[in-house]
Amino acid sequence: MSGCGRHTIHRNHSHCGWSNANPPVLAIAPGESVEFEVFDASGGQLNPQSEAGDILRFDFDRINPVTGPVRIEGAESGDALKVTLLSFKPSGWGWTACIPGFGLLADDFPDPALHLWQYDAQSLAPALYGPGGRVPLKPFTGTIGVAPAEAGTHSIVPPRRVGGNMDVRDLAEGSTLYLPVEVDGALFSVGDTHAAQGDGEVCGTAIESPMSVALKFELMKGAAPATPRFTTPGPVTRHLDEAGYEVTTGIGPDLMEAAKDSVRRMIDLLAAQHGMTPVDAYMLCSVCGDLRISEIVDAPNWLVSFYFPRMVFT
Amino acid sequence: MSGCGRHTIHRNHSHCGWSNANPPVLAIAPGESVEFEVFDASGGQLNPQSEAGDILRFDFDRINPVTGPVRIEGAESGDALKVTLLSFKPSGWGWTACIPGFGLLADDFPDPALHLWQYDAQSLAPALYGPGGRVPLKPFTGTIGVAPAEAGTHSIVPPRRVGGNMDVRDLAEGSTLYLPVEVDGALFSVGDTHAAQGDGEVCGTAIESPMSVALKFELMKGAAPATPRFTTPGPVTRHLDEAGYEVTTGIGPDLMEAAKDSVRRMIDLLAAQHGMTPVDAYMLCSVCGDLRISEIVDAPNWLVSFYFPRMVFT
Repeated sequence: MSGCGRHTIHRNHSHCGWSNANPPVLAIAPGESVEFEVFDASGGQLNPQSEAGDILRFDFDRINPVTGPVRIEGAESGDALKVTLLSFKPSGWGWTACIPGFGLLADDFPDPALHLWQYDAQSLAPALYGPGGRVPLKPFTGTIGVAPAEAGTHSIVPPRRVGGNMDVRDLAEGSTLYLPVEVDGALFSVGDTHAAQGDGEVCGTAIESPMSVALKFELMKGAAPATPRFTTPGPVTRHLDEAGYEVTTGIGPDLMEAAKDSVRRMIDLLAAQHGMTPVDAYMLCSVCGDLRISEIVDAPNWLVSFYFPRMVFT
Repeated sequence: MSGCGRHTIHRNHSHCGWSNANPPVLAIAPGESVEFEVFDASGGQLNPQSEAGDILRFDFDRINPVTGPVRIEGAESGDALKVTLLSFKPSGWGWTACIPGFGLLADDFPDPALHLWQYDAQSLAPALYGPGGRVPLKPFTGTIGVAPAEAGTHSIVPPRRVGGNMDVRDLAEGSTLYLPVEVDGALFSVGDTHAAQGDGEVCGTAIESPMSVALKFELMKGAAPATPRFTTPGPVTRHLDEAGYEVTTGIGPDLMEAAKDSVRRMIDLLAAQHGMTPVDAYMLCSVCGDLRISEIVDAPNWLVSFYFPRMVFT
């Protein structure tokens, strides 16, 4: 039954919560590949003509749909499901939003904001942002995971032991992800494709962009990791790092507060250097700036850095 | 008075606490450069013949000395002190230790451990580690800062608003650091040079290595940042990223616990893949693996990733 068969699942086969009771839309053998059509994270509630006010009318029950689930024959609790990210077919449009009550600096930015993106789906040339900004693209899957063992329907929003909304920007073409299987058949789903995002996804959204993604599935019997792990075959930031970085810091005894401080200071710096509004700088930080823990041992103060790639403005 | 003058401060002009009452050992004009000789972080208590047991005899009052302070004429509260990291002269030896009670996983590793390094100070070729490991080097200053406004002597261990023990691994040759001046003359000091370190410095120590560092000082009147910020002129990880990364994750509502989980899982992975003892894997993680905040918005669970460069074993 194994082989290089290729299946396609259309985006109308989607669900918005994780449950091991979701019926599989396809069953495959280990070794097979599947192409998934994926909605943007609004589930089609935004389009290239949308405005910021549309965010206030979101039906949150339709947020972050994932396509699937796919049953992998022979998968059982304790196995690792090895998922190779083969290729992406981006759509050429996307959106980034500041959603009231959501995002690292939700208290600082109470009002909705929306940026619409158009990009070249073939060349993936950097996408334009305001006066002078050019954001390098690297498509990846924000939400990718398998069904949890616990009964019931679990929110699609947080990531969990079995994966889900991890928003790890290096789950991109060529990477290999290892997910812990918890139920027979694994019940794999994927969604929330992004054209670009920095580490942290600080405003709460990336370049949210519908696309198709092709994945290959293999099983490693009894090799479940405690939480998802992955391997990248090569460098992960060379599309961003050529001109170096501007870096701001947050320093203190709480990592969350230090992270917030580092982003606030980058927003201030970008606003001053490039004449941006704070909310535009915040959304830009989310799609291409990186939160790093520079120091986590010199008690009582930790240091979180926010790295912004200078090539965006060169 | 400004110009390209070069001064040298010997390492015996060092101190182990931050105080605006520390008398300057040199006064310079803005625009001048200084070469600092720097002790290793043990303050000379370890040497290339040391053993793990020597860590238990540390005099902690002598830990992490910094060379200085240097008075920069004209600097006053509210200014930014711009420090350009011109060049490093590494010594060719260093140490990495697991110090009881210190480090991200102090509870998991209660016993002292010590790894001694020899490296080529001219070529800076990757340094050997156990069977098969090769750690790329990039010298930088772990502790760099100015005197705080608050009276008294403040511990050298934690970083603070005015800099200090930041352990930011990209404060390397070519970077430009902006420090907030709080007292007349700034009173700048530097120490704790490292031959290599990953983001986080997870075991609490890097490749601790005495060296000399040449710095240029300039003033930006009234431009003090809230906390230190810096600019790198080019890529920061190209010496590490060629072969990609192995990445483990920690997922949950607390960033500190997620960080610990991600490192524990990498220790397990390295131990399994390369037949290392856990403590050897822990120290290796500290000198070349990176803690990144991949996702900090999908409440209630955040995701911290630990990136280990595959080139260390290729």
